[in-house]
Amino acid sequence: MLIAVLQMQAVPGDVDANLSRIGDAARRAAEMGAGLLVAPELALGGYGAGEGMTGLLPSDAPLVKLGAMAEAHDIAIVAGFAETGEACLHNSAAFVTGRAAPIIYRKSHLYGPYEKGLFEPVAPQTIIVAHGGLKIGMLICYDVEFPENVRRLALAGADLIAVPTALPLGPDAAFIASTMVPVRAFENQIFIAYADNCGADGRFAYQGMSTIVAPDGTALASAPVEGDALIVADIDPDAFAASRERNAYLRDLEG
Amino acid sequence: MLIAVLQMQAVPGDVDANLSRIGDAARRAAEMGAGLLVAPELALGGYGAGEGMTGLLPSDAPLVKLGAMAEAHDIAIVAGFAETGEACLHNSAAFVTGRAAPIIYRKSHLYGPYEKGLFEPVAPQTIIVAHGGLKIGMLICYDVEFPENVRRLALAGADLIAVPTALPLGPDAAFIASTMVPVRAFENQIFIAYADNCGADGRFAYQGMSTIVAPDGTALASAPVEGDALIVADIDPDAFAASRERNAYLRDLEG
Repeated sequence: MLIAVLQMQAVPGDVDANLSRIGDAARRAAEMGAGLLVAPELALGGYGAGEGMTGLLPSDAPLVKLGAMAEAHDIAIVAGFAETGEACLHNSAAFVTGRAAPIIYRKSHLYGPYEKGLFEPVAPQTIIVAHGGLKIGMLICYDVEFPENVRRLALAGADLIAVPTALPLGPDAAFIASTMVPVRAFENQIFIAYADNCGADGRFAYQGMSTIVAPDGTALASAPVEGDALIVADIDPDAFAASRERNAYLRDLEG
Repeated sequence: MLIAVLQMQAVPGDVDANLSRIGDAARRAAEMGAGLLVAPELALGGYGAGEGMTGLLPSDAPLVKLGAMAEAHDIAIVAGFAETGEACLHNSAAFVTGRAAPIIYRKSHLYGPYEKGLFEPVAPQTIIVAHGGLKIGMLICYDVEFPENVRRLALAGADLIAVPTALPLGPDAAFIASTMVPVRAFENQIFIAYADNCGADGRFAYQGMSTIVAPDGTALASAPVEGDALIVADIDPDAFAASRERNAYLRDLEG
């Protein structure tokens, strides 16, 4: 299956503007033949929206609209949004096709005081969706930096992990995007689609460098640091059978 | 503490020749001021010795001699050897100073049919030695490719992990040495000393590329692919306090 990753500069607090950008990317990705589009962390509300972050239920209009866009373009979409919880917000991602209720993943590992002040974490979740012949897991940003989270999804059978991200520009960010994310793929022999924010929103600046990495640790497609980008790559687990054979980490895990 | 890593082409089956090489490196490392020398996997007997691999007890003459060399040069040595077990061989590493009994670590994750045919694995061990103001853990080669093993030692307080290695030359080997090993250090904010074999021994050829990596993922010292090498680096955890603060993986692990 061909997949697409959208790197975008979200508009903080303007859900309609961000939905419109995601919808446009879904149309272009579908025209290229993609069956999945991954958008960044909190793409609907804007990562840096702070107190202006709108909490949404999966049944609320913006997520219904996201599903309708997915259905119209015949493509699945994974996108980050702030989810209204019982007494708090969750930092969540929705997998939508418009043909069924959204499937929701909630971030387990919140990064830094900003996220810890805005959101409530949840215990690590194993959410895997079958789509286009692949098993697709979800994580959000800091989650993927913990090998435990990626291992859990790989052991549950994930071929591909979709990772909406908001990686702040900083001394370690390029290392995380270009070195750590490929190692997460390699050490589990899976694909990772890492969709980052870019630009700046008044509160944070972002590293960009969105990437789609293969089980052998190579980058199949990568975006630059600056600017919106739509990157695509073919996800074919069978093409990496030799790499899985040489690097049998899941089979050898228990010694 | 300054530490040294020895990359060497071992002579299969010639323990005396290999001990002599390690002793020479210990003298040179000590002259540079190092307090620890890490030698490769199965350095005493030669990784490729196969059926000619001599099993040794920690009380046998070669390990006593290794300890005497450490004491003579006032340096600790970590070196790999084939250990005589109850009914089998273990792929082991000894930490010796000559002032106390050797401390033995046994490999938990054996790589490929050659190792699985020669050695018996053990359940993952948490062996940490206090030396020169540092807590030093041990892993052997394939062990370090599993994030679970490195995490276990980091959570037990290791500042530095000594990794005797025999990384076979191959399509993924450079990625493992130059990309995966730095990520293991970064994701735990610790140091790793990765001491590889080099050259060829009739059965295998090795990747070299021994390295000492820091908590921020940078290589403090690296050896080339070919040729024996003695590399050194200063291990100062306090110098990476800012990296630990930005990348608080151990503190944030439980969410």
